[in-house]
Amino acid sequence: MRDFRHDLTALALNTATLGHNVPGAGAGWSPERTIDACAERGIGGIVFWRREIAGRAAVIGAHARAAGVSVAGLCRAPFLVGPLAPRGTVEIRDDFRLAIDEAAALGAPVLTIVTGGVEAGTKGVAESLKIVAERVAAVLPHAAACGVQLALEPLHPVYAGDRSCLTTARDALDLCDLIGAEGLGVAIDVYHVWWDTDLPRQLVRAGRRILGFHLCDWLVPTTDVLLDRGMMGDGVADLRGLRAAVEAAGYRGFCEVEIFSANNWWKRDPAEVLDTMVERFRSVC
Amino acid sequence: MRDFRHDLTALALNTATLGHNVPGAGAGWSPERTIDACAERGIGGIVFWRREIAGRAAVIGAHARAAGVSVAGLCRAPFLVGPLAPRGTVEIRDDFRLAIDEAAALGAPVLTIVTGGVEAGTKGVAESLKIVAERVAAVLPHAAACGVQLALEPLHPVYAGDRSCLTTARDALDLCDLIGAEGLGVAIDVYHVWWDTDLPRQLVRAGRRILGFHLCDWLVPTTDVLLDRGMMGDGVADLRGLRAAVEAAGYRGFCEVEIFSANNWWKRDPAEVLDTMVERFRSVC
Repeated sequence: MRDFRHDLTALALNTATLGHNVPGAGAGWSPERTIDACAERGIGGIVFWRREIAGRAAVIGAHARAAGVSVAGLCRAPFLVGPLAPRGTVEIRDDFRLAIDEAAALGAPVLTIVTGGVEAGTKGVAESLKIVAERVAAVLPHAAACGVQLALEPLHPVYAGDRSCLTTARDALDLCDLIGAEGLGVAIDVYHVWWDTDLPRQLVRAGRRILGFHLCDWLVPTTDVLLDRGMMGDGVADLRGLRAAVEAAGYRGFCEVEIFSANNWWKRDPAEVLDTMVERFRSVC
Repeated sequence: MRDFRHDLTALALNTATLGHNVPGAGAGWSPERTIDACAERGIGGIVFWRREIAGRAAVIGAHARAAGVSVAGLCRAPFLVGPLAPRGTVEIRDDFRLAIDEAAALGAPVLTIVTGGVEAGTKGVAESLKIVAERVAAVLPHAAACGVQLALEPLHPVYAGDRSCLTTARDALDLCDLIGAEGLGVAIDVYHVWWDTDLPRQLVRAGRRILGFHLCDWLVPTTDVLLDRGMMGDGVADLRGLRAAVEAAGYRGFCEVEIFSANNWWKRDPAEVLDTMVERFRSVC
C-alpha cells in the first residue's frame, strides 16, 4: 500500500466537502480560493461540481494547474433514468454531452455518472440498468473525442429507487462489459460500498477500470442517508482495508474526500475542515 | 408460480403490519383478536413478535391452531453483535435460547435472526459476521432439540452499521455454509433485497434453505428507512419477479406481509389494513 503519512499528492478534495451546495457554507469560497487553500496544504487534486464552474471551466482549470493542483474529475453527468432525470431522451443526451464538454474545458480526465433510480412504469432495477447502458453508450464516442473518461459510480442501495439503480461494483462492471467500449470505468466510494463483502473480488475484476476512489465514513447512527456522511475515522467503514483492496487491484489514482454533512462539517470553517481532512488522511486512511 | 388470486392459504400476517409496537395503533387488538381477524378473511398464517406473546405463548399458539391459522414464525432472536445487542456474551446466549423456547411454546417452526450491526472496536462487517457465526452455532443444538429452525434475515445495507452486518442473501448463505448445520436457513424480505441483481442466483443456491419470504414494497421517496415501508404495489420492487425467483428455487412456504409504516398504515383501522393487504396480495404479488 502507498504510504500517505508524509505525502498528500494523492489526496484530492471534492468540493462538496466544504458544503458547496449550501448557501453560506464554505464561507462563500470561490473555486479559486478553494484551489489556493488546497495548494497551501499540499493537497494534490481537486474535483468540482458543474454548478461551480459553469461558464468558467477553462479559467478555473488553468488556475488549478498554475497552483500545482490537479483537476481530478468533474461531478457529474445528469441522472439518466428515474424520477430525478431530466424529462426526455434528447434533454438527457444533450446535458450529458454538455457535461463532457465542461469536463474537457476544465481539463478533468474523468466525468462521474450517477445513474438515477427506477424508471417510471418499471419495477426493480433491471429495465433501468438497460436504459442506462443505452444512454451511456450513445455519448461514449463524444467523450472519447473530448479525451474524457466516464466513471459509473454505484451508490448505496438506499438510493436505488430515486438516485441510482446502480448499487454495486458488480453491476457497474457488468454495465462496462455490456457496453464494451474503452473510456468507461467505475468510481468506488466507500460510503456506498463499505458493507459489500463481494467488493474485493469485483475490484480485482475491475483492474485498470477503477477511475476513482472516494473517501468519507459511515456513521453509527447515520441520521440522514444523504447529508450525514462522516469524516474518515469517525465511522465503521474499514477504510484501510478498502484502500488496500483498491490498490491490490492496481489503482494508483487520487483518494478523493467527498463528505456531505449538513449538520456538522458544512457548518465549520472550511480551513478547519481541510486541516482535519489532511490529518485523517494521514492517520486513518 | 402459485396462483393466489383465489387462495389466501399461503398469505401470512406479520403483526408488525398492524403497528404492534406503537401505543394506540392496531386499535389495541390482542393477539387473539388479530388471529380471529385473519381467520375471518381466510389468511393462512400469522407471525408474532416476542413482546406480544411473552408468558402466553402456548395459549396464543393454541388459539391460532383452533382458528385454523398457522403460526408461521416468531420475530426474533436478540441482536447478536453491534451497538444494539445486549451487553455480554452470556446475556445474548441466554436471551437467544429464551427466544427459541418461546418459539417452541408458540408452535412456531421458525425463529428469525436479525444479526445486529458492526461490533464495537471493529471496522467493516467481516469481524462481526464471524462473531454472528459463533453465536448462532452455539445455540443451534438447543434449537434442534426444540424443533425450531433458525432463519438468518439479511437486512438492507442501510442498516449495516447498527442493525445488521448481514446485508445480502449471499452473505447469509455463506454463514449457513460456514456453520454447516441442519436447521439453519435464510429469510428473504423484499424490502431488504429488492435492489440486488445477484439475488436470483443466490436463491437457486439457497434451495430448501429459504425459510421465509416477506412482502411489502420500497416507496419512492422513502421518507424514513425504518418506518416508511410501502404496501405491496405502491413502490418499485418487482414483487412478482421476486416471488417467481423464490418459487423457482423451490420455496412453497408463506408469503408474510411485514410493513413498518408509522405515518400511514399504522394510523389506519387494522381491518382496513388487512383488507388492503388481501386485495394487494391477490392483485400485485
